[in-house]
Amino acid sequence: MSYLEREINEQPEVLRRLLAEEWSNVSAIAQAIRHFQPTFVCIAARGTSDNAARYAQYTLGIHNRLPVALAAPSIHTLYEAPPDLSRALVIGISQSGQSQDVLRVVTDAQQQGALTVTITNDSASPMAQAAQHHLALLAGEEVSIAATKTYTAQLMAVAMLVAALADSDSLRAELQALPQHVSETLRQGEAIAHWAERYRYMTSFVAIGRGYNYCTAFEISLKIKELCYVTGSGYSEADFLHGPIAQVQPGFPVIVIAPTGKTLPVMLDFCPRLKERQAEAIAISDDDRVLAAARQQVRLPSGIPEWLSPLVAVVPGQMFAMYLAQAKDHELDRPRGLTKVTITR
Amino acid sequence: MSYLEREINEQPEVLRRLLAEEWSNVSAIAQAIRHFQPTFVCIAARGTSDNAARYAQYTLGIHNRLPVALAAPSIHTLYEAPPDLSRALVIGISQSGQSQDVLRVVTDAQQQGALTVTITNDSASPMAQAAQHHLALLAGEEVSIAATKTYTAQLMAVAMLVAALADSDSLRAELQALPQHVSETLRQGEAIAHWAERYRYMTSFVAIGRGYNYCTAFEISLKIKELCYVTGSGYSEADFLHGPIAQVQPGFPVIVIAPTGKTLPVMLDFCPRLKERQAEAIAISDDDRVLAAARQQVRLPSGIPEWLSPLVAVVPGQMFAMYLAQAKDHELDRPRGLTKVTITR
Repeated sequence: MSYLEREINEQPEVLRRLLAEEWSNVSAIAQAIRHFQPTFVCIAARGTSDNAARYAQYTLGIHNRLPVALAAPSIHTLYEAPPDLSRALVIGISQSGQSQDVLRVVTDAQQQGALTVTITNDSASPMAQAAQHHLALLAGEEVSIAATKTYTAQLMAVAMLVAALADSDSLRAELQALPQHVSETLRQGEAIAHWAERYRYMTSFVAIGRGYNYCTAFEISLKIKELCYVTGSGYSEADFLHGPIAQVQPGFPVIVIAPTGKTLPVMLDFCPRLKERQAEAIAISDDDRVLAAARQQVRLPSGIPEWLSPLVAVVPGQMFAMYLAQAKDHELDRPRGLTKVTITR
Repeated sequence: MSYLEREINEQPEVLRRLLAEEWSNVSAIAQAIRHFQPTFVCIAARGTSDNAARYAQYTLGIHNRLPVALAAPSIHTLYEAPPDLSRALVIGISQSGQSQDVLRVVTDAQQQGALTVTITNDSASPMAQAAQHHLALLAGEEVSIAATKTYTAQLMAVAMLVAALADSDSLRAELQALPQHVSETLRQGEAIAHWAERYRYMTSFVAIGRGYNYCTAFEISLKIKELCYVTGSGYSEADFLHGPIAQVQPGFPVIVIAPTGKTLPVMLDFCPRLKERQAEAIAISDDDRVLAAARQQVRLPSGIPEWLSPLVAVVPGQMFAMYLAQAKDHELDRPRGLTKVTITR
């Protein structure tokens, strides 16, 4: 068995561990944030971690009314002209905790008097040491180059922080059911392995989500690019309509991420537009209408609150990327030309 | 002649008009911003205008030390949970001024007491009316669905605001030379038309920039998707190394945007990685080494300050997208399934 498959399957256990062990640390961080009263949040991250930052933009915005900026690290590293972050909560996210450019944003912010928090999977890493607060993912070593369990752990860390900041018992309670929902979703692996074969020769694709699941569209698309070497992008449904939809011709594969929630109506309106163009839709949803409109269906468990659906909806995409890479005879744990820690300036 | 070609060629004239007529308005807006003292900037935009927002993130960050967040409009429209923007400068950018979701971010911010500015090409539009300040692009009607002259006008409007906020005569002076640089670059059209034929059957591509030209990579990629119906993405060089580079196989087309400046060293390091993978590089640069490493070269005029290079470097990409669409016998002014004003919720 590949490390990739093992790590995908470890996700329920990783999420349970985080929920069991990090609440007191998360509460202390929430307390520090309330005390600091940031006027906005700035998050620095790259790759998969940047998709966790996208998740944070929606959850911190909607539940905590905090506006979120995604940092442009080159402003700090190449231009050496850091913006004024003194009134910000600055969060650095990195699986390895080794990202030099992300670290630079955090240390610049710290010098300016910002409140700094890092989220990493290595408490001994430079990023874990650099900030005032560190949130550990406790995911165990991730050997596969394509990040999976550390991604869902990052989302969980963000969700815990959101619940603690809102000081909401009902939000906290909603988190507890998550590992079980992920377990149920993993059971769809066999079906996905079967129909993934059909996409052996696909040359391009897009993944579309909206709102909370904007990050899911990005992350699924990144996994497919990394593991399957196929060109494609993640889009918000709204951005997709502003131009990129022109590329959809008959048979063009479109992954539609549409769980129940406030974004479902726009995603339902979107489905017929794919049908008109005879796109090949792959749906990840708990809604019968969305599923019925697609060529392939991954049914999500019902009853997942929309704000937590990204932790579950990404899992079928991880499995699809893995099984498609397998169908293409690719190395699952070491995709061509990638390394586990990417150092960028 | 198509409207698209006409509008691409009108760009020097549009930029000159903006420079001639909008300085006093821009100065008044800069004065209001200094008075308001925002702790951060939030910009709402979709499609091409969102790429102008990306430009603003770098220029306002580097020259004015203002951190910039790109708004997530669905937080306002679908979730109806606007974050607290009361300490922000909120800028809405839209060619038509009709974008309902972008307008919603601006009106929510206004109600919260934020300082609001809109940038549109229609002074009678709802967005122009909604904000405390409006910056008119004065680009004349844009008939082609793919935006070109309104994009460079948006960048110019942002650059003028940056220069006015910095209250810098040298930055202001640098702007004056821009229309001439764009004119010179337009002369490369014939050469591009010639070699664009070679890409008639390309099925995917990426466009890579860094720093100020992150937006250029996005915008060139959007033009190619809209006009040529080919799948691809724009990336920052750093994000590209974090996974998506896996898709580069022999012959894979990579558009490299690398003008002289602080990002040139990392882009020079990036070129050999493309060579290793036998990518097909198309270079847009004024640097001999970058140009020598590519299969196709578009030489930019020398002496353009890096912060203004996006206004010039995008032009070869606009022309490439147009000539490639022509080589594919596509309708230039009305790409399949797009409309000039896209209404999204």
